[in-house]
Amino acid sequence: MKKTLMDKPIGVMDSGVGGMTVVKEIVRQLPHEKILYFGDISRCPYGEKSQEEVRDYTVQIADYLVGKGIKMLVIACNTATAAALEILKERLDIPVLGVIQPGARSAIQNSRNKKVLVLATSGTVKSNAYSDAIIGINSGFSVSSLACPKFVPLVEQLRYKDDVVSGIIIHQSLKKHRHTDADTIILGCTHYPLLKADIRNYFNNEKKVIDSGYETARETSTILNYNNLLRTSGESIVHTILINGDSSRFEYVLRDWLPELEYKIQEIEL
Amino acid sequence: MKKTLMDKPIGVMDSGVGGMTVVKEIVRQLPHEKILYFGDISRCPYGEKSQEEVRDYTVQIADYLVGKGIKMLVIACNTATAAALEILKERLDIPVLGVIQPGARSAIQNSRNKKVLVLATSGTVKSNAYSDAIIGINSGFSVSSLACPKFVPLVEQLRYKDDVVSGIIIHQSLKKHRHTDADTIILGCTHYPLLKADIRNYFNNEKKVIDSGYETARETSTILNYNNLLRTSGESIVHTILINGDSSRFEYVLRDWLPELEYKIQEIEL
Repeated sequence: MKKTLMDKPIGVMDSGVGGMTVVKEIVRQLPHEKILYFGDISRCPYGEKSQEEVRDYTVQIADYLVGKGIKMLVIACNTATAAALEILKERLDIPVLGVIQPGARSAIQNSRNKKVLVLATSGTVKSNAYSDAIIGINSGFSVSSLACPKFVPLVEQLRYKDDVVSGIIIHQSLKKHRHTDADTIILGCTHYPLLKADIRNYFNNEKKVIDSGYETARETSTILNYNNLLRTSGESIVHTILINGDSSRFEYVLRDWLPELEYKIQEIEL
Repeated sequence: MKKTLMDKPIGVMDSGVGGMTVVKEIVRQLPHEKILYFGDISRCPYGEKSQEEVRDYTVQIADYLVGKGIKMLVIACNTATAAALEILKERLDIPVLGVIQPGARSAIQNSRNKKVLVLATSGTVKSNAYSDAIIGINSGFSVSSLACPKFVPLVEQLRYKDDVVSGIIIHQSLKKHRHTDADTIILGCTHYPLLKADIRNYFNNEKKVIDSGYETARETSTILNYNNLLRTSGESIVHTILINGDSSRFEYVLRDWLPELEYKIQEIEL
């Protein structure tokens, strides 16, 4: 039976395991969709690479996933989105979505005083990608950004579950902005949703905290629907994860984050 | 100077004044965009017409607005969306968005227990449009609906500002569902956002209340961005409102809802 376009998987790519927080939300909101994920663990992290390198890796992975047959590509990595979204929108015939615009758009939707604080990796902060996206849509906004380099290791080493350790690192990272006048905070890195409750709590539950992955899943639905590509039935889906390296560390984190996900994992060369 | 596609207005249509709550949100989220609105006041309300009649009116208005030069069409009316969205998506070369899918998608994103209550006009409730949209995206949801025929007159007669009157009508309309197990409530009519605070309050602020217009503005941004049609600069915009009848009543409501909107209004024949 010929596979229709609608039945093809959504391709999701990231430099490592972080993009699985986006997958978690796509699977929750769109349970009839199948995911084909690529984690570029042999070249991770992207944050320390040049824009050109990240762009080249991202294009290479996108071409690989398109070759496997996907109906849409989600770049579930802030660094890769900043480096390659525009080029991939031109290059590919399928819809392409990054994580930055959905987070930016949700901040615009939610903020009342038009002041936004972005928490992200140093690379994303330096790229100004969130600020450019927000002000590009609505020039009335002011955006400040803060690099939180200790958050990714905190999450990947699963130490985020220790309230004391989390509390110390969050305080050290955010203390200068504790009294920010921004009413909305963007979690501008795919690892940060694991710290969402703690971050919200740090700001006394007074800020709207935007999870870019959560918003990207929502916009994946919007874009699929707009293109008449939404899959509306089908259960018991097994997702596929491709990695170019040893999968044990990846699976260790994955089992913690998404214990119920049904998947098969393949180590490939790329 | 040739006007670029990006600089064209967003066409917004409704049977009457209700769609202006959607315009309010589009203007807030996307302040560089210009609106060309059509209010079909001579044939309002659509709720009592047949599906075929509503479809024909909607197609006629859409063609009229396309003839005026719009870059996107927003059907800011639940009845018209249910009757004509699919046919207009096929018929027009520009992006077309209705109010139902964005509200449905936001409910899926926000609900934790997958139980949703839709408040709408009798016509929208009968059409099952929200239930079909939600279950079409995520079949794990259960959706109940409630017609609230007293809400539109309450809002259009500006009696919603009287807390006692509002309180009585909201209680009469919603009392059978006061203890609903749905954790998410959709305001499935463009008039209802004016009652949002009261409705939220009626449910002791324990429900997530989804405003379809607020979500439609967000998705207007998503779709324009996806099609590289977002206008990213330009201030002091005067919007245009077209009506096929006496504008005094329309303006009376409009000045109350959007006192700061800069617009010119024209009475036309259609």
